[in-house]
Amino acid sequence: MNGEALVFYSPTDDPSAWRDALKTELPDLDFRVSSESGNNAEVRYALVWKPPAGFFAPYPNIKLVTNLGAGVDEIVGRNDLPDVPICRLSDQGMVQLMTSYVLFAVLRYARDMQEFERSTKRGKWEFIHPRPLAEIKVGVLGLGDLGAAAAIALANLGFAVSGWSRTQKRLANVNCVSGADALDGFLAANQILVSLLPLTEETRGILDKRRLALLPKGAKFINVSRGQIADEAALIEALRSRHIAEATLDVFHKEPLPEGHPLWALDNVLITPHLASNTTPRIAARDVAESIRRIRRGEEPLHRVDPKRGY
Amino acid sequence: MNGEALVFYSPTDDPSAWRDALKTELPDLDFRVSSESGNNAEVRYALVWKPPAGFFAPYPNIKLVTNLGAGVDEIVGRNDLPDVPICRLSDQGMVQLMTSYVLFAVLRYARDMQEFERSTKRGKWEFIHPRPLAEIKVGVLGLGDLGAAAAIALANLGFAVSGWSRTQKRLANVNCVSGADALDGFLAANQILVSLLPLTEETRGILDKRRLALLPKGAKFINVSRGQIADEAALIEALRSRHIAEATLDVFHKEPLPEGHPLWALDNVLITPHLASNTTPRIAARDVAESIRRIRRGEEPLHRVDPKRGY
Repeated sequence: MNGEALVFYSPTDDPSAWRDALKTELPDLDFRVSSESGNNAEVRYALVWKPPAGFFAPYPNIKLVTNLGAGVDEIVGRNDLPDVPICRLSDQGMVQLMTSYVLFAVLRYARDMQEFERSTKRGKWEFIHPRPLAEIKVGVLGLGDLGAAAAIALANLGFAVSGWSRTQKRLANVNCVSGADALDGFLAANQILVSLLPLTEETRGILDKRRLALLPKGAKFINVSRGQIADEAALIEALRSRHIAEATLDVFHKEPLPEGHPLWALDNVLITPHLASNTTPRIAARDVAESIRRIRRGEEPLHRVDPKRGY
Repeated sequence: MNGEALVFYSPTDDPSAWRDALKTELPDLDFRVSSESGNNAEVRYALVWKPPAGFFAPYPNIKLVTNLGAGVDEIVGRNDLPDVPICRLSDQGMVQLMTSYVLFAVLRYARDMQEFERSTKRGKWEFIHPRPLAEIKVGVLGLGDLGAAAAIALANLGFAVSGWSRTQKRLANVNCVSGADALDGFLAANQILVSLLPLTEETRGILDKRRLALLPKGAKFINVSRGQIADEAALIEALRSRHIAEATLDVFHKEPLPEGHPLWALDNVLITPHLASNTTPRIAARDVAESIRRIRRGEEPLHRVDPKRGY
């Protein structure tokens, strides 16, 4: 294995944390940040987040491209990818983080905590009788690794959980429906809606003005997948009219969400800076290394993406 | 069973919801709000929350007193109780609600959401790298029905959970310690502290100024049991100095928390009006009815309290 190198590129992730984490897993692997010099013919693996156009051209011997995140919409549509397996990250640490974010956001609404944040600021003791969790309907859009884990965790807490996905899934204690025909009814039935949909040509703008209006009046919306899933102008209008009473948004059409953007001004929106799930290098490096070992043995890597399907 | 009556008293609970719920379970039972007239000799059961002194004297045939809540500190110290079993409520609905509140409050701090509430109001995108849940140490004080359920749920999400109780407990994936000697070390070891302690003569003021100072700097404190567990003045001082960085408080020395109380003015405290857990009559009535059936058969009722122990 001497002479094998991995090239790393990310505008946001810390290369030294990844270098250390992969060193532990694969001491023989030469870890190179893309700006470092070296023999490009030795580069067999790429670990990248939003690499610039033409990034892969200097590396003729790449055998595996790993996307530094779960969402692959930034990479699958490119026309400059090498013809090798494209993988994404999906480790237990990411699942735990995403589940923890979704539980937080759903529990906040289920327990009326946004109201108590307000009454605390007003200095007023204002009782609201808690509702049994079993009477609160939560809908999860997208039942991939992250969506399924969140839906199951919500069901385990006692919520009435439904899930919608492109193809039919089966999950314990989750009412699973699928396909375009089921979507309108699904939206109308759930008081709290969580989007964990991947961004594909089919899902871009899927929550348009018409579909957002199908949500029950006073619905809560949580988006932890991609901003482009929803028509942002229609979402803002629905939040202003309080048809959607509250939203927790981690993702946006443009990130970072620009200062002065109308979403910042809404007092019924909680905004987080795209961190619902995040890779922790020392956890994620285990899967990255395992895929490299599998490629070395001629086996299928972990979490391979189908670029045609888009996720 | 003809002629058996239950007397109901509560300054806060809705008698009609309890009447309906118990009617479903025990159609033959005569449900009487204490203000209603009737033959007092027929009253065999009392379902009460903070009844006035001397409440039980007119009912010579009482066989069971059920406290309308999980915390029995308001009833066990009285000197006017009939010498019959005293029970409390502890049903699955209450466990679910308490667990949901504790998870919300812990997840909020674990995911830095109090910071994002602030950055949303400022209109600023301020990234904070998420920490793996396994690196966040959560301590649960009190491992009764509610405390144990909360500790297990936190451990299931991936937190590093410890629990402290008077007598030693064993819970899956929870590091259980017990006894007065273990308390100081327990407090020093946990970044997020949750009190689910019953209020007894041993626990009143147990979180005094010295013990609050043992918490690591920047600790978060969540109190969902009884305000009197903590020295309120010392808690306020610790919150002002930010030694305790944040608190979520559902219970207070005086409730409702009076307007103008210094806790309202702290911007690092989330205040909720004593509703972390709450009885839902149609769920709780099942246990109340089952205890009545057991008393009728000469058996031990559910959730019996030991007045000497205090819980």
